Amino acid sequence: MPLIHVQQTPGKTAEQKSELVRALTDAYVNATGSKPESVWVTVQEIATDSWSIGGDTLAARAARS
Amino acid sequence: MPLIHVQQTPGKTAEQKSELVRALTDAYVNATGSKPESVWVTVQEIATDSWSIGGDTLAARAARS
Amino acid sequence: MPLIHVQQTPGKTAEQKSELVRALTDAYVNATGSKPESVWVTVQEIATDSWSIGGDTLAARAARS
Amino acid sequence: MPLIHVQQTPGKTAEQKSELVRALTDAYVNATGSKPESVWVTVQEIATDSWSIGGDTLAARAARS
Amino acid sequence: MPLIHVQQTPGKTAEQKSELVRALTDAYVNATGSKPESVWVTVQEIATDSWSIGGDTLAARAARS
Amino acid sequence: MPLIHVQQTPGKTAEQKSELVRALTDAYVNATGSKPESVWVTVQEIATDSWSIGGDTLAARAARS
Repeated sequence: MPLIHVQQTPGKTAEQKSELVRALTDAYVNATGSKPESVWVTVQEIATDSWSIGGDTLAARAARS
Repeated sequence: MPLIHVQQTPGKTAEQKSELVRALTDAYVNATGSKPESVWVTVQEIATDSWSIGGDTLAARAARS
Repeated sequence: MPLIHVQQTPGKTAEQKSELVRALTDAYVNATGSKPESVWVTVQEIATDSWSIGGDTLAARAARS
Repeated sequence: MPLIHVQQTPGKTAEQKSELVRALTDAYVNATGSKPESVWVTVQEIATDSWSIGGDTLAARAARS
Repeated sequence: MPLIHVQQTPGKTAEQKSELVRALTDAYVNATGSKPESVWVTVQEIATDSWSIGGDTLAARAARS
Repeated sequence: MPLIHVQQTPGKTAEQKSELVRALTDAYVNATGSKPESVWVTVQEIATDSWSIGGDTLAARAARS
């Protein structure tokens, strides 16, 4: 009966998201024996100017590299 | 002093959201005796291509039905 | 297909939690017309020393009053 | 650079959790091409009296069946 | 190894967000002695019609004042 | 009107948590000009066997080092 909530940066196509939620669900089911229908996945996009590591936004890191 | 965080699919009007947060707040207050001002509700929309059940996105389920 | 996630301070009995999740579910269903089975609620307790308002923990506020 | 946050019911061993986070990470990496080190997974347990579907806690559902 | 997740209302510039995530990271590092690189911050915006206090949305409160 | 939600590993004393929530609140207020009373912080502990980076739990990493 798990909820899997993903936060990731934008840029995935609908098809990639579709594959991703399938892959995470399969991984959960295989690791735990849960029924697939009991697995919910939600995906939230966080813009690169709204995500930081060590105080630097991902946008700032990308601009420097 | 609760936080109530709702994830739902898009398509609600501002008026429906307004009714929803009121209804959830009233329900919380009635069930617990908390003061209304102590109840915060935030609502986040998750697109149907970003929400899956059993590995199928809601968008894919809707397209099949 | 909503997820309702509640953060609240400890001290509720199992019966109170049971009433609470029912009340929130009913409120959601009444406000949106969703099917009850589509509504998931999870409740997480946050200790009063781990919750702050204006920088003061709820534990500190309670100790002063 | 994803965060994967899992909410599940208790009862998994440390070994099962270990396999689960590995499996979710591998699934994410395979589906997106991200570097493994960029994938964080956190797992939170929600007791069966604190999780409801359709207004019934999982504890109540288990007690009836 | 903390994750700091912020929910706030819209209206901040990219520069303000950049300062905010830096300030939160520094505060965490100073208070705990953690390494800066271990601190991740994500910022999510919640519209004022999707955030309520005491059952009133922030949008409704702003319209009245 | 922000919510700041922290996930961190256990081992902080109540005093350290108290300093942390104060420091995060001050940082938010200084960076944004918000009123201190509008800033809520909640802190959640995630055990080291329930947090992974690159598929390895923090517990496993600590055991190896």
